[in-house]
Amino acid sequence: MAIEAFDVVDLIRVKRDRGPLSTGQINWLIDAYIRGYVADEQMSAMTMAIFLNGMERREIRDLTMAMIESGERMNFSSLTKRTTDKHSTGGVGDKITLPLAPLVASFGVAVPQLSGRGLGHTGGTLDKLESIPGWQANISNERMRQILDEVGAVVCAAGSGLAPADGKLYALRDITGTVEAIPLIASSIMSKKIAEGTSALVLDVKFGSGAFLTDIAQSRELARTMVELGEDAGVATSALLTNMNVPIGLAIGNANEVRESVEVLEGGGPADVVELTVALAREMLAHAGQPDADVRAALSDGRAMDCWNRMIRAQGGDPSAPLPVARETHVVTADRSGLLVEQKALPFGIAAWRLGAGRARKQDPVQHAAGIDLHAKPGDAVVEGQPLFTLSADEPDRFARALEALEGSYRIGDHGDEVLTGGPLIAERIGA
Amino acid sequence: MAIEAFDVVDLIRVKRDRGPLSTGQINWLIDAYIRGYVADEQMSAMTMAIFLNGMERREIRDLTMAMIESGERMNFSSLTKRTTDKHSTGGVGDKITLPLAPLVASFGVAVPQLSGRGLGHTGGTLDKLESIPGWQANISNERMRQILDEVGAVVCAAGSGLAPADGKLYALRDITGTVEAIPLIASSIMSKKIAEGTSALVLDVKFGSGAFLTDIAQSRELARTMVELGEDAGVATSALLTNMNVPIGLAIGNANEVRESVEVLEGGGPADVVELTVALAREMLAHAGQPDADVRAALSDGRAMDCWNRMIRAQGGDPSAPLPVARETHVVTADRSGLLVEQKALPFGIAAWRLGAGRARKQDPVQHAAGIDLHAKPGDAVVEGQPLFTLSADEPDRFARALEALEGSYRIGDHGDEVLTGGPLIAERIGA
Repeated sequence: MAIEAFDVVDLIRVKRDRGPLSTGQINWLIDAYIRGYVADEQMSAMTMAIFLNGMERREIRDLTMAMIESGERMNFSSLTKRTTDKHSTGGVGDKITLPLAPLVASFGVAVPQLSGRGLGHTGGTLDKLESIPGWQANISNERMRQILDEVGAVVCAAGSGLAPADGKLYALRDITGTVEAIPLIASSIMSKKIAEGTSALVLDVKFGSGAFLTDIAQSRELARTMVELGEDAGVATSALLTNMNVPIGLAIGNANEVRESVEVLEGGGPADVVELTVALAREMLAHAGQPDADVRAALSDGRAMDCWNRMIRAQGGDPSAPLPVARETHVVTADRSGLLVEQKALPFGIAAWRLGAGRARKQDPVQHAAGIDLHAKPGDAVVEGQPLFTLSADEPDRFARALEALEGSYRIGDHGDEVLTGGPLIAERIGA
Repeated sequence: MAIEAFDVVDLIRVKRDRGPLSTGQINWLIDAYIRGYVADEQMSAMTMAIFLNGMERREIRDLTMAMIESGERMNFSSLTKRTTDKHSTGGVGDKITLPLAPLVASFGVAVPQLSGRGLGHTGGTLDKLESIPGWQANISNERMRQILDEVGAVVCAAGSGLAPADGKLYALRDITGTVEAIPLIASSIMSKKIAEGTSALVLDVKFGSGAFLTDIAQSRELARTMVELGEDAGVATSALLTNMNVPIGLAIGNANEVRESVEVLEGGGPADVVELTVALAREMLAHAGQPDADVRAALSDGRAMDCWNRMIRAQGGDPSAPLPVARETHVVTADRSGLLVEQKALPFGIAAWRLGAGRARKQDPVQHAAGIDLHAKPGDAVVEGQPLFTLSADEPDRFARALEALEGSYRIGDHGDEVLTGGPLIAERIGA
């Protein structure tokens, strides 16, 4: 890439004064940042200016492409199958990748799922799968291609070679209060997905109190931006805007989310987890040329389950081995009879995090058996004294701070009261 | 100062989302930045958020006080004289401090003038005075007090002990495109002036093409903000908004500006330099209880000149020694006869800088004899072939880039054409 030379202070001033950065300027900026010619303090001023003044569609596309150019690109064109990927912006109890990947793969589609670890109150897919004895997140590109060919679904760690500029920029945004900027979120997600080489992508963009962007209008803008980026890069992309006001399913943690995912693959599981899995699977299969696939049948007749077992074994895991169980549990019961009218995702996410299911710093381990199991969901009738949820932790001194986070997080009202879920689970679809 | 603990990312988010920072948060931020608990990349995100979202009057006062608290304070209360200081936001050909300080001191008022060096296209008072053989900018606080007592006027380098947070913050703003933020400029200037311990302060806030803030509305806001900060800190403060569209006087450089200043102290000199010097002196003397002082008389009868000679000698300088002369000169002549209708300050400032009068990096030396001498000012009739201005440099290869900067910077029109100076020299006065 031929690089013109710029003065980074001039470029910061352009964005500070609401101007657009040219393609050449963006290419230079990302390249110079990776090479260390642009200092972190200069890049953080730039990201704050982007946060506050925004970017045009063309700038976001240029930024995404520049981040892709900073590293390697994968290529699945040698596969005989069509490839389709899914990305969620993260939520509380969001284990959908676990049943979804084998479900879609059971229709002969390749699902290369490069996933991350959790940070903060939202969990990470790799952390969940690592609660399965023997399962390994890190595999070679060669092995990944082989599993895609033989099994169809692979969930593994993204190598550091894909869009390394994104890794450096994300770490900077994390400590400088510029995480929630739509151009930066969109380019961060899409640079990795485009570099990964998938031919289709379905985005689960969450909104509501437990989501990254709480406001649906912002989530819609993020979804539109990412769909445009995908289209511009030749990746068939669509997005579902989904409600993250209430935890997804009944399990929040790691091992318990695997357990719930297996229930879905066995044809059972909570209705909301099934609904989201089926909707995303239909989107992915439509992109892969199978718009009429009978997705629910593959859950009930064992095809998806069979693919899960092979997928776990292919990465060294034993799908029949017992999952870890926490040393301590604490049950919270209903203090009155009535209707469960509210259950807020964010405090449950924070509580699970404090129990040990999540990590405070990147290098920390997670405790795979820690988390929360819900025994009732909004709209359910409850009677005084019945268990509402169970907290699990390896260390009993974690319960106090988890319970603190849960204060005011749920409410039992009277029968006939309005149930506060913030609307349907799947609010909108965006894409061609 | 009792310090509460905060998370800097939370504080950045407050300002990013247009909220005000509390007094405790600002105190913590500046203290933690000086101690290194807040990283440069975090502070630069904060300064960009301040640049774009602004600060309330109370926040700017808190920021100023926190920067003062980061260092020592001077105290001139042991002097029998009243103290009054002047600060200019910087311009092209702005040598006013040189005649002004001895002029005001000749009325028995102490003028402690802590000055800086030039960076970019605006010159620095210390650089100008250092062209006088023997003159020293660095003197002890004790010696400074002694000169104020005996001579009345002292122009010296601000020690690093005054508001050290400002020094660290300014260096960061310089490389991150956040210099021109009013809350940051105002707190930077006023923290040093308040820490210096003057009882009165007159601000020369410039606007126009050669000024730091080109727009008069922004300069007015800066002036008001600084006058309020002064008042809040018990320093009698007023400001003049002055026009910086045209270079001040005929000399732009260092030694030649000293020469022009001496002409003013001898009762002569260009009308604009005299007008500005007299107006600022009247402001300063009014603050010192002498609103009716006959300022022009002190210029014509030698009192100010006498004070200048003693002021220069007190810091080791020889006021009668010849000033340095450049090795090379290049004269630009009029290519037609007519009326000089335009002479833009900024390109002349940049040209003088490129000739060696200014520095590109803090550690660079300046060339004291380099600069520009104007032979005509806007409104003057010129005839074809007459010298318009002379460039001086020690190295002849500097002329080409200086002349490049001057392309389109002046224009000869017809008699009767409008002369473009952007209005009167002194536009407004702000203050009680």
